[in-house]
Amino acid sequence: MSSVPGVTEEGHALASAAPAFLKGHGTQNDFIVLLDPDGTFGLNERQAWALCDRRQGLGADGVLRAVPADGGGWFMDYRNADGSVAEMCGNGARVFALALRDAGLVTVDEFVVPTRGGDRSVRFLDGDVIVGMGAATTSARAVTVSAGRGEWAATSVWVPNPHAVAFVDDLADPGSLSNAPDVTPADAFPDGVNVEFVVPRAADRIAMRVHERGVGETRSCGTGAVAAAWAWRRRSDALSEDVPPTIRVDVPGGTVWVTEHSGGELDLKGPAVIVARGVIDEHWWRERA
Amino acid sequence: MSSVPGVTEEGHALASAAPAFLKGHGTQNDFIVLLDPDGTFGLNERQAWALCDRRQGLGADGVLRAVPADGGGWFMDYRNADGSVAEMCGNGARVFALALRDAGLVTVDEFVVPTRGGDRSVRFLDGDVIVGMGAATTSARAVTVSAGRGEWAATSVWVPNPHAVAFVDDLADPGSLSNAPDVTPADAFPDGVNVEFVVPRAADRIAMRVHERGVGETRSCGTGAVAAAWAWRRRSDALSEDVPPTIRVDVPGGTVWVTEHSGGELDLKGPAVIVARGVIDEHWWRERA
Repeated sequence: MSSVPGVTEEGHALASAAPAFLKGHGTQNDFIVLLDPDGTFGLNERQAWALCDRRQGLGADGVLRAVPADGGGWFMDYRNADGSVAEMCGNGARVFALALRDAGLVTVDEFVVPTRGGDRSVRFLDGDVIVGMGAATTSARAVTVSAGRGEWAATSVWVPNPHAVAFVDDLADPGSLSNAPDVTPADAFPDGVNVEFVVPRAADRIAMRVHERGVGETRSCGTGAVAAAWAWRRRSDALSEDVPPTIRVDVPGGTVWVTEHSGGELDLKGPAVIVARGVIDEHWWRERA
Repeated sequence: MSSVPGVTEEGHALASAAPAFLKGHGTQNDFIVLLDPDGTFGLNERQAWALCDRRQGLGADGVLRAVPADGGGWFMDYRNADGSVAEMCGNGARVFALALRDAGLVTVDEFVVPTRGGDRSVRFLDGDVIVGMGAATTSARAVTVSAGRGEWAATSVWVPNPHAVAFVDDLADPGSLSNAPDVTPADAFPDGVNVEFVVPRAADRIAMRVHERGVGETRSCGTGAVAAAWAWRRRSDALSEDVPPTIRVDVPGGTVWVTEHSGGELDLKGPAVIVARGVIDEHWWRERA
């Protein structure tokens, strides 16, 4: 038996027509991990947003379905709280990796998680999880972000999902982020964009708030932290020739660390927590199939 | 085996040092029901608010712990999302009753749930759950409620938890209820008060919004619906001699029905939904013990 009650070591929910789940969070970015060892449950847009509904569902920032990957391992089928498909999420990948190990689907300390954003390495170290985030790319095109009464020049960063990183004087400056900040030009990010507001604290330390497309302001965003640290290292180049490779990023939900390796590869390190395990109600699941 | 995975028919979580749970809602007032068949898990203030935290925990408006009652049956140990102890919750009692039956702890269609607000009868009927709410009491003392830019005379109703019911022209009039409305005189409700804003729709139908003490604005409040219907029947006495005994109450999260019986006893009827079942993580639980 796995540690998920009523679930076998292979991730099969015993005598249930609905998937087993784990609920957890990484720096308060919270996720439902669904186990779909045969790929029979699937996960449609309606099920994803209904599961993420914080009153009628179980409640989360997103759903991560674990389904066998064609090339081996467990594919991370990630959907946002509004049900939309997403490429990759650094905090989600940590929770996903911990859930796979917790459910007994993975028994090693280092493995690969295939995602829509490509294969990601994960590694457990001293209670934290380190996720390989690949390299970041940018665009020379000028982008402007406005929120509250402020307007800022922003750096475009793809990790590979799109981010606009704006450096501000104070994290309170953008005001409420319950609505998405305006990003111009409108066609800079045809698939929408996550927006980070960043305040430098030291050469190796920044703090940020984030508005995630399709979700709203969240307590943390893994790719957002990577984008912010990447942009900060480029920006701080002008200030110092000795920028450290590892940047501490304080988010409202906690702290993560971003390391840039010599080849441009970026790692995200941070905590992951499992709160509960169980099985979705069959009737509830079928009604939304 | 009960239908909760990894839990026996007696509600014992197999090989776990943390309680089994069910997550569900009644008209979008959502609850975590904890099964504590031996009374060994308990439920302290910290565990309750941590469980209800919608990002670091499982997320809910409140926790309902099922523990054997001295006189038989399952006592509903109810705590609000801030961890504070509460007497009774009509929506919670429906979810609690459905969870007891779902977990196999109760097998009949009609039974009694002991609560801090007294023994409550529950009955399953055509997919809904009917909860006996006892009689309401009031006070002749004039009470005033203010929210947004409005101020209204309110009726005090105890069910037996305290309510201030204000009739308004439009449900939008009180504005945002993210902060508690002001209720004067300040000593009218020494233990705090739930505030209902009510708009009549017909002789037998009202609509309301509610601010619950210790929680904020919620999608529904069972005792609040009872208080509102009770106050409406008194108020409508002046308008009609033929006030129907059953009042439909539309809340943001759905619809419930309140019936006043000839002896003054009030019933609350409405839906209850179970979304998922499982077991709280042992390490997470112990850290908050």
